[in-house]
Amino acid sequence: MKVEGTWRRAIELGADGRSVNVLDQAQLPYVIAWLRLGELSDVARAIRDMTIRGAPLIGATAAYGMAIAMCADPSDRGLERAHAELAATRPTAINLRWALDRMRAVLAPLGSSARCDVAFAEAAQVCDEDVALCSAIGDHGAPLIEAAAARHPDRPVRVLTHCNAGWLATVDWGTALAPIYKAHERGVPIHVWVDETRPRNQGLLTAWELAQHGVPHTVIADNAGGHLMQRGEVDLCIVGTDRTTRGGDVCNKIGTYLKALAAHDNAVPFYAAVPSPSIDWTIEDGRSIPIEERSADELRFIAGHLVIPAASPVANPAFDVTPRRLVTGLVTERGIAPASAQGLRVLFPEHS
Amino acid sequence: MKVEGTWRRAIELGADGRSVNVLDQAQLPYVIAWLRLGELSDVARAIRDMTIRGAPLIGATAAYGMAIAMCADPSDRGLERAHAELAATRPTAINLRWALDRMRAVLAPLGSSARCDVAFAEAAQVCDEDVALCSAIGDHGAPLIEAAAARHPDRPVRVLTHCNAGWLATVDWGTALAPIYKAHERGVPIHVWVDETRPRNQGLLTAWELAQHGVPHTVIADNAGGHLMQRGEVDLCIVGTDRTTRGGDVCNKIGTYLKALAAHDNAVPFYAAVPSPSIDWTIEDGRSIPIEERSADELRFIAGHLVIPAASPVANPAFDVTPRRLVTGLVTERGIAPASAQGLRVLFPEHS
Repeated sequence: MKVEGTWRRAIELGADGRSVNVLDQAQLPYVIAWLRLGELSDVARAIRDMTIRGAPLIGATAAYGMAIAMCADPSDRGLERAHAELAATRPTAINLRWALDRMRAVLAPLGSSARCDVAFAEAAQVCDEDVALCSAIGDHGAPLIEAAAARHPDRPVRVLTHCNAGWLATVDWGTALAPIYKAHERGVPIHVWVDETRPRNQGLLTAWELAQHGVPHTVIADNAGGHLMQRGEVDLCIVGTDRTTRGGDVCNKIGTYLKALAAHDNAVPFYAAVPSPSIDWTIEDGRSIPIEERSADELRFIAGHLVIPAASPVANPAFDVTPRRLVTGLVTERGIAPASAQGLRVLFPEHS
Repeated sequence: MKVEGTWRRAIELGADGRSVNVLDQAQLPYVIAWLRLGELSDVARAIRDMTIRGAPLIGATAAYGMAIAMCADPSDRGLERAHAELAATRPTAINLRWALDRMRAVLAPLGSSARCDVAFAEAAQVCDEDVALCSAIGDHGAPLIEAAAARHPDRPVRVLTHCNAGWLATVDWGTALAPIYKAHERGVPIHVWVDETRPRNQGLLTAWELAQHGVPHTVIADNAGGHLMQRGEVDLCIVGTDRTTRGGDVCNKIGTYLKALAAHDNAVPFYAAVPSPSIDWTIEDGRSIPIEERSADELRFIAGHLVIPAASPVANPAFDVTPRRLVTGLVTERGIAPASAQGLRVLFPEHS
């Protein structure tokens, strides 16, 4: 999507063809800085320090990390070392592991002289596939916004989103924001309510994306969405997901459940954008998903400033689970499924 | 309640008997500073700048402002000027107007020589009445916590609260926190989940109060309460109110409605502490309460630091309305009423 007026991706091949450039997300939304990653250690650090974040982007960046490593040391030992070093950066990230294993499976059978070129081609393929997947989610989701626009031709469609499931978390388009970008590109007037999304304030990344791309939006406190829905100021909600069960329960950034409750209470449709790699086919009931308790400092500090004094303990559960009964539909790359085991099975019969 | 180990009130008569000392709440929770208000202009500034806040405390401080003014200029003109200057500080605060009118009604019939002494006595009376009212709310609410403790003798009672409805917002005890303090004083083990309460972060005042008084607590993001209730980690919720309708709808800090939805969804009892002066007997349906849109800077800045860049617009509705169907009971100074017109009429028959 657009940054400073130019279409960009969140990760791009460097001019030398042997490095990548990424947006330094740790500095967003305050400073726009592109960072060149030319060594394996640069890539590992960028993932570990959350210079880049978002499961699909982590996977894509890790794939390029393997490629960069293969040009420096294409030996079997170099391959294993790169895999191990990158895998250790964010141990729980499913896409990271998936991308590393995919790269290793392609590279291991090759002679060392071929590995550098093939690895860069494969990493580019990982990126392009992610873009296609997000684009398809956007194409399937945009009609929801167009239908709302048809019902209210006199005003913009008001969409509420939580956290950042935009192109910054992927390679391009994003997941929850893809339908918004697609509808915007088709000329549908949209206004996005952007939850601030404490802690970590990822809503500010969403606001930054939307501002850069020219999509009208307003940032609100996480507390405000229910009130806006009571007052009829939200036409639909779209959120992303970190993991969705095969039964249709949606695990996402903490606070998603509260918005789904408010949507249900006010008959506002509530959608999750679900790329199929984020579906956990091994789990039926979302209540069995372990919820990560993250560092208290994510809440204690805001933009580097101490806000909550040490005298008070802090708890920081990072995700919650929205039960399927509150979810109107799951927007996948194959279409929109009802949030149910049956609904997902119809779209993904290979997982039956 | 306790500050640095000593029982204090949020407003106290100065040693000279002709001034008051208040906690500078603009500096809390970072710095504990008592501020002497010895002139009418000091009092007006303290209310206007939110050095002191909370409807009951604003009323009490304004009453003392009238007293301070009467010792400087006890003429009829001085009386009217003090009333006008203080009334202009927070035009929408109901308790402010009520306290000023009460003081004027007492003072106007008196000769000017009597006004200074009588005004200080009347202001002290305003404070003592507020303390008695909050204390009664605490006495009626504490059994809710004691009953939960009896059901779970093996662990503390876990209470969730939103915003600051503690003694800092009143003269002593608070409203929502009064039952917690009373139960704590009776030796009931309690743990309080304190919502951060964006924007303005008044939850940090609640956390500070609880820390000073020695009540165990944990600060959480506003997004986290629903998840905690899903996991069975909340026994009951108690919040304050800015205005409750005669029908039992509760207007309170933005985000209260979301917590009430989660409580309802998880069968967690949800109470509002409602001193009768905050009941609006002229309104039945909470949806007709106008909701104040406050400055964007309350969201944009946190503890003085710019967090949301100017490129993104910000909306800041300050309150929401929790419909009575989500409220288990209203804890008043006369007892606990069902959240209904009938329930309130039984306790307050004089308003039938």
